[in-house]
Amino acid sequence: MYKITLFTKPVFVPGFSYSGIHCGIKKQTDLRDLGLIYCPSSVASAGVFTQNVAKAAPVTLSQTHLHESTSKAILINSGNANACTGDQGKKDAQASVHLVADQLKIDKSEVLLASTGIIGVPLPMPTMRKGITSACSNLDERNILNLAKSILTTDTYTKVVSATITKGTEKLNICGIAKGSGMIHPNMATMLGFIMTDADVDSTYLQNSLETVTDESFNMISVDGDTSTNDMVLALASGQSKLDLKNDTAASNAFKKALLLVCTELSKLIARDGEGATKLLEIQVMGAESHHSARLASKAVASSSLVKAAFFGKDANWGRILCAIGYSGAKFPPENIDLHIETEYGLLPLMKEGTPLTFDDEYAESILSAENINVLVNLNDGPFSATAWGCDLTYDYVKINGEYRS
Amino acid sequence: MYKITLFTKPVFVPGFSYSGIHCGIKKQTDLRDLGLIYCPSSVASAGVFTQNVAKAAPVTLSQTHLHESTSKAILINSGNANACTGDQGKKDAQASVHLVADQLKIDKSEVLLASTGIIGVPLPMPTMRKGITSACSNLDERNILNLAKSILTTDTYTKVVSATITKGTEKLNICGIAKGSGMIHPNMATMLGFIMTDADVDSTYLQNSLETVTDESFNMISVDGDTSTNDMVLALASGQSKLDLKNDTAASNAFKKALLLVCTELSKLIARDGEGATKLLEIQVMGAESHHSARLASKAVASSSLVKAAFFGKDANWGRILCAIGYSGAKFPPENIDLHIETEYGLLPLMKEGTPLTFDDEYAESILSAENINVLVNLNDGPFSATAWGCDLTYDYVKINGEYRS
Repeated sequence: MYKITLFTKPVFVPGFSYSGIHCGIKKQTDLRDLGLIYCPSSVASAGVFTQNVAKAAPVTLSQTHLHESTSKAILINSGNANACTGDQGKKDAQASVHLVADQLKIDKSEVLLASTGIIGVPLPMPTMRKGITSACSNLDERNILNLAKSILTTDTYTKVVSATITKGTEKLNICGIAKGSGMIHPNMATMLGFIMTDADVDSTYLQNSLETVTDESFNMISVDGDTSTNDMVLALASGQSKLDLKNDTAASNAFKKALLLVCTELSKLIARDGEGATKLLEIQVMGAESHHSARLASKAVASSSLVKAAFFGKDANWGRILCAIGYSGAKFPPENIDLHIETEYGLLPLMKEGTPLTFDDEYAESILSAENINVLVNLNDGPFSATAWGCDLTYDYVKINGEYRS
Repeated sequence: MYKITLFTKPVFVPGFSYSGIHCGIKKQTDLRDLGLIYCPSSVASAGVFTQNVAKAAPVTLSQTHLHESTSKAILINSGNANACTGDQGKKDAQASVHLVADQLKIDKSEVLLASTGIIGVPLPMPTMRKGITSACSNLDERNILNLAKSILTTDTYTKVVSATITKGTEKLNICGIAKGSGMIHPNMATMLGFIMTDADVDSTYLQNSLETVTDESFNMISVDGDTSTNDMVLALASGQSKLDLKNDTAASNAFKKALLLVCTELSKLIARDGEGATKLLEIQVMGAESHHSARLASKAVASSSLVKAAFFGKDANWGRILCAIGYSGAKFPPENIDLHIETEYGLLPLMKEGTPLTFDDEYAESILSAENINVLVNLNDGPFSATAWGCDLTYDYVKINGEYRS
């Protein structure tokens, strides 16, 4: 039996070193703005990218490089998204990757690039050049928290989640970091995730695993429904774990499960850190006639401005939840729906077989004063389920996103 | 030549009488809550309905009756949506329609029903019964403004738009009323529209015209992206105009154009009256490779919480507009986009061929302090265009929708 353990802190992943420094893209000198992940023994690399038609230069560059080589390094800058920067943006992305390749003595096709920050302003290349040299010479396996800080923009906390898989003396490590999807300071965007593992897998296996897991985790977060020009999740594997994922199905399943756990926890950390958010919403839809319907329904509830504002106001507004499921595109018989809300303060049943239940408003408010709200929907129409995450809609969201650029 | 004149007030439509009374569904005695439209000579009826899977009882009843007969009367109550009310809700809807039919001595299949207000609470039938009797005995051709008031819930103003088509002494009249889609008091929902005309057309013609026009007007409003359990737009024609729409293509085209103008103006009145709104946003996308892409792009911009919050903050945030178009599903080459904003205070160019233009922030803020904001996007990729309307996202939206039910 394989034992999976989950941590909300880094674990050591053999084969990886990191740096996370301040190079000057951000004005504030105490904010890190350049990160580097290096895995010279890399055996596999994978990535999932934004579906936005207006893709930033680092997105198209990383997509190309992933097809050409097994990646060994990932350069990440925060403070500037290098998006809507035209031909100059493409040249700057190429130049950045070239510098990393030169310093690390690897091929430039082995370097991936991610950027987040202001849109429409060219990368400050002299600053980047000095920064890349410094980041390359600062690589250390203990620098993971500095790296996690260097990718943040307006996130209010660093997001690190790890998992280990053990069986006897055998061990496999996964460490993930992320930054939030909150588009806080005007023109700042982007959800980024980076997964480091010592699994001994090939790129096809890693790509398939990452795609499956992303669909159930990062793709089920809705902070404000907007997806950015720069979103990406990248994974590298150093191959140094002795766990035999190729021939042992149980080990392979444990890896996929651990990867899902890491990405799910990162997703919840991102949703909870949505702009102005005070609550994490978890919307679980079960009993759906298809996985597609379950996904549509849960995401519609998590994305509804009306539902999000109601939870901010501690309002058990089942009408809005039902309405959101109704327009989601999910197929279901409305007369079958069961709906309740659960928090650490108790259970609040709201509908049974499509009929609203009466409840005490004061009791409902006390249940909903919790920080973690679980909405449980049973469509009673089949065996499929899905979970989506979001946050409440608050005055601060409007304030943060309405403030004039300065 | 046919002359079309547009009014933001009622016009007399031969063949119609109305009532709009207070019967007691709403507690406040100065608020009207029951409306009736009657057209004994009706020659055509048409309707478009919410796509929400969780349809309210009046929606399914009206859909059925429209298929069975040419409608002569429409009963509308506000204060109670008769949604999520199970079998009782269906019976109450039937009973209401039966009462109208009895009083007016028409068949019950000739009566349509629309409801808006609180969800999940049965209709107060004794109140409804007395109200229907009173509404039927109060019918008068001069009662249109009382009717327009009786369908409101939390709208801050009545919405009436009319058009006349004239050629010599021939005349055709269209009068439309609507209520907003703002879901203000918790569990209140619904966009309703009613079109009265004396056009001499059949139901197929009226239905086709209404569907085409609705796609370019009511379906292009986004107040908060949520569509309700009760949304509907109904149209009746009395056939008393002498204008020959059946054999005169120019007259028929004038009718469709006038109908579009009425529905477009009603849509803008609804968008402008969105919850907490301070600005009307008009998003015009041109140069698209297909009508579908133009619609997707304009609606995505009008629905983006980030764009809406930015306009509240007078922030010329072209990055968010581009981002919304990018994830909309529209096909377009990002390097071709031209983008500018126009208000009564001037023109603000933001992007040319995909490249951001520099602008003075103070100048931008002065342009954006206007109440009507036109966003003009040219995808430079084809001949198709579409326009969507929305409003800004304000503190008051969150306040209104977050307030605990009372």
